[in-house]
Amino acid sequence: MVPSLATTALPLHYCFQSKQRSRWLSQLTELIAFPTISALPQHRKDITFCAQWLARHLAEIGLQHIQVLPGPKGGHPSVYADWLQAPGKPTLLLYGHYDVQPVDPLKEWRTPPFKATIIGDKLFARGASDDKGQLFIHLKAIESYLRTSGSLPLNIKIWLEGEEEIGSPNLSAFLNREAKQLQADAVLVSDTEMLGPNRPSIIYGLRGNLNCELEVSGSRHDLHSGRYGGAVHNPLQALSEMIARLHDHKGRVAIPGFYGRVRELEPAQRQEIRCSCARHQQILTDLDLPAGWGEAGYSLFERMTSRPALTINGIAGGYTGPGAKSVIPSRGLAHFSFRLVPDQEPTEIAQLLRPHIAAITPPAIRSRLKITGGSRPVLLPIRSSVMQAAVRAVQQTWAVSPVFTRSGGTIPLVEQLHRHLRVPIVLLGFGLPNDDIHAPNEKMNLPTFFRGIETVIRFMAEYAT
Amino acid sequence: MVPSLATTALPLHYCFQSKQRSRWLSQLTELIAFPTISALPQHRKDITFCAQWLARHLAEIGLQHIQVLPGPKGGHPSVYADWLQAPGKPTLLLYGHYDVQPVDPLKEWRTPPFKATIIGDKLFARGASDDKGQLFIHLKAIESYLRTSGSLPLNIKIWLEGEEEIGSPNLSAFLNREAKQLQADAVLVSDTEMLGPNRPSIIYGLRGNLNCELEVSGSRHDLHSGRYGGAVHNPLQALSEMIARLHDHKGRVAIPGFYGRVRELEPAQRQEIRCSCARHQQILTDLDLPAGWGEAGYSLFERMTSRPALTINGIAGGYTGPGAKSVIPSRGLAHFSFRLVPDQEPTEIAQLLRPHIAAITPPAIRSRLKITGGSRPVLLPIRSSVMQAAVRAVQQTWAVSPVFTRSGGTIPLVEQLHRHLRVPIVLLGFGLPNDDIHAPNEKMNLPTFFRGIETVIRFMAEYAT
Repeated sequence: MVPSLATTALPLHYCFQSKQRSRWLSQLTELIAFPTISALPQHRKDITFCAQWLARHLAEIGLQHIQVLPGPKGGHPSVYADWLQAPGKPTLLLYGHYDVQPVDPLKEWRTPPFKATIIGDKLFARGASDDKGQLFIHLKAIESYLRTSGSLPLNIKIWLEGEEEIGSPNLSAFLNREAKQLQADAVLVSDTEMLGPNRPSIIYGLRGNLNCELEVSGSRHDLHSGRYGGAVHNPLQALSEMIARLHDHKGRVAIPGFYGRVRELEPAQRQEIRCSCARHQQILTDLDLPAGWGEAGYSLFERMTSRPALTINGIAGGYTGPGAKSVIPSRGLAHFSFRLVPDQEPTEIAQLLRPHIAAITPPAIRSRLKITGGSRPVLLPIRSSVMQAAVRAVQQTWAVSPVFTRSGGTIPLVEQLHRHLRVPIVLLGFGLPNDDIHAPNEKMNLPTFFRGIETVIRFMAEYAT
Repeated sequence: MVPSLATTALPLHYCFQSKQRSRWLSQLTELIAFPTISALPQHRKDITFCAQWLARHLAEIGLQHIQVLPGPKGGHPSVYADWLQAPGKPTLLLYGHYDVQPVDPLKEWRTPPFKATIIGDKLFARGASDDKGQLFIHLKAIESYLRTSGSLPLNIKIWLEGEEEIGSPNLSAFLNREAKQLQADAVLVSDTEMLGPNRPSIIYGLRGNLNCELEVSGSRHDLHSGRYGGAVHNPLQALSEMIARLHDHKGRVAIPGFYGRVRELEPAQRQEIRCSCARHQQILTDLDLPAGWGEAGYSLFERMTSRPALTINGIAGGYTGPGAKSVIPSRGLAHFSFRLVPDQEPTEIAQLLRPHIAAITPPAIRSRLKITGGSRPVLLPIRSSVMQAAVRAVQQTWAVSPVFTRSGGTIPLVEQLHRHLRVPIVLLGFGLPNDDIHAPNEKMNLPTFFRGIETVIRFMAEYAT
């Protein structure tokens, strides 16, 4: 492959040096050490400390106008920086998030979640892939330019969010407040996955979501199961029966009207998925599962990316400690969440859900449904010069073209940026399907990490030309 | 009512003195302060300390041959004492247990669970009714005799168990080892309830039980619900679906063969229950519930006492903390338990359960069923001289005859004593239906407590004559 003219001056030699690479891993280890779990109030200070660390680091690598921007409505802060000394060149907004998911079940971690641990060519830690590792790819691409030539080939703005993992609840207020500051010609987000170690992809569709809590209660307080067992409806049994009625026996969500606005895949899209994307057996092998599950008539990959879903995220109630407790619990709690696809609207799904929950609540049981957050699904246009620059950067680095595909995940920012800023957004991520993000033993594949830096270096140059 | 001759020399004046009563409540407060939760390993020392406290107390009230008997197989100790200086008189074994249920959910307690708190005429604490308060009734009846006349009207053995609330797992070994020591002509157990504040009852039937843990698992570890939602079977959903299939839509246990050995109530028994026992509306009013639940064709009281039941005691899995976690959990756990009636056998029910669990486990889910304990149901003969003595003591104290009824609870000791020692057992308890045993804010009604002492004083005299 003949490198394009733009790449001849790239700072690749710098990013290939092993002394930089080992220094970067030390820095990433510092970043990972902050337990920035945005869902847990006790980690508020850790998040603030981490934002301050990032602000210092952005200054160290040569960025300017560093700011820790407070979250609206008491939310977690964002970190902003820029480098705007390339007049006439486009401005690229780089997005990442430095908050992480909770770490439980802690006992399943083989290494401490906030102590980056390298085993072979993997770095294990919460946030290693989602998204501290990936945002670090952006920072190190920038550093490679600024430490070698002292300049970047284009204008850069960088925005690191602190509450992505709780659904970016204050994003809309933040975007309204900071719209001018964040204005750019294009956005690069690295918070997604490749299809495999040598199969880069650009995501053009994301599922939306809707997070719910369902609390059911029966008697005023716990009852003795010897005394009352068999005569009162147990809230945990009722909750189980209600959960069982959220799906039909074909694996479809049983809420009336739920599929009303789902845009069906076109035959060409299904053909593309069949050719390029993970196959049934490969997905099951990766998961070590004997069988898949879900909506009949769609492949596993289609179910994961282009079909809506309802997932029970947690159930709690009664006594599950050592030994036995003779109790009929007075209440039970379930967390569940939807993944939505175009053109489903979270608010509309919530309106369909409420009467269904009421209808499946048994007579002597009270249920309370709480909607804790939601985000729309999004489909991004794929024809733009920045997208073509990303394709070329990938081709140069990986010697293959990226697969354009949809992801099952949700990045509320993307849908909102798409709607508010109306600029092209490139979702070019460097996670791998087996990174175990959101799970114990999350990891980042280091060769992919370094190649990601190389890709972003090339992408900046390609987009600048 | 004319008192029988035997009651003329009773130490009732002593037990009516307010200075004794306030001293006894102080002592009970000390007993309650030991957090003797037998289910939790961290309370092992508290249980030992409590046993030692009881041993000292038994000596103080004048009992002899005090022993703290180690539990077989590392189980919690029992406390033994006797007074055998009434030659020619029958020997009565008094049984109680000093261990208690766990206290969670702790935040629902209005007073600290191990600090006895008197509000009005109720004493609130874990164990206030089940069974520290009730065993104290026996001790104070004995004390009333020994502190006044220096002797008892009959021979007494007392046995206080330390692992009743975990199903007396070592009872059989204990009874084999201590059979000679515990030999008696009759047994008095006060670990049951009256039908109401002025409605004493003698229990002649107890349900058995079978405690189970069901663990289901899917993928090796938690998965991201964005990535995989809709394509893999969620263990929590599978667990809910399985729980929903443990009952049919008529409220009957859906395990094939489950009702095979259930002895149906005879028409006369059903008539007795209709006349004497708690009515449908009264039960619902007590529970503040709009409707009952369960097996069609049986009254609520019948379902509570004479029909078998399956109760979900707890469910845990995934994330239910603050905020939301985008997770498909890798496993879920449910604790559930059966109440069994004559002639159901716990071992046989376990054998019926296993294939049913296997049959309702979905294809991509693994399930593991663990049986953690079980006890047979029992029906006690009601025609014996000791039973008649109990009836007379109740009549003298309460001015009504006791109702002979069945209880929904399980006291493994009773069934085993019945089988091993083959002596009459009197289940004369002084709990009330709204004592909230096993629940937050457990309490003992103090007027009932003191009347219980009077009843046991009279019972000893009546049985001795």
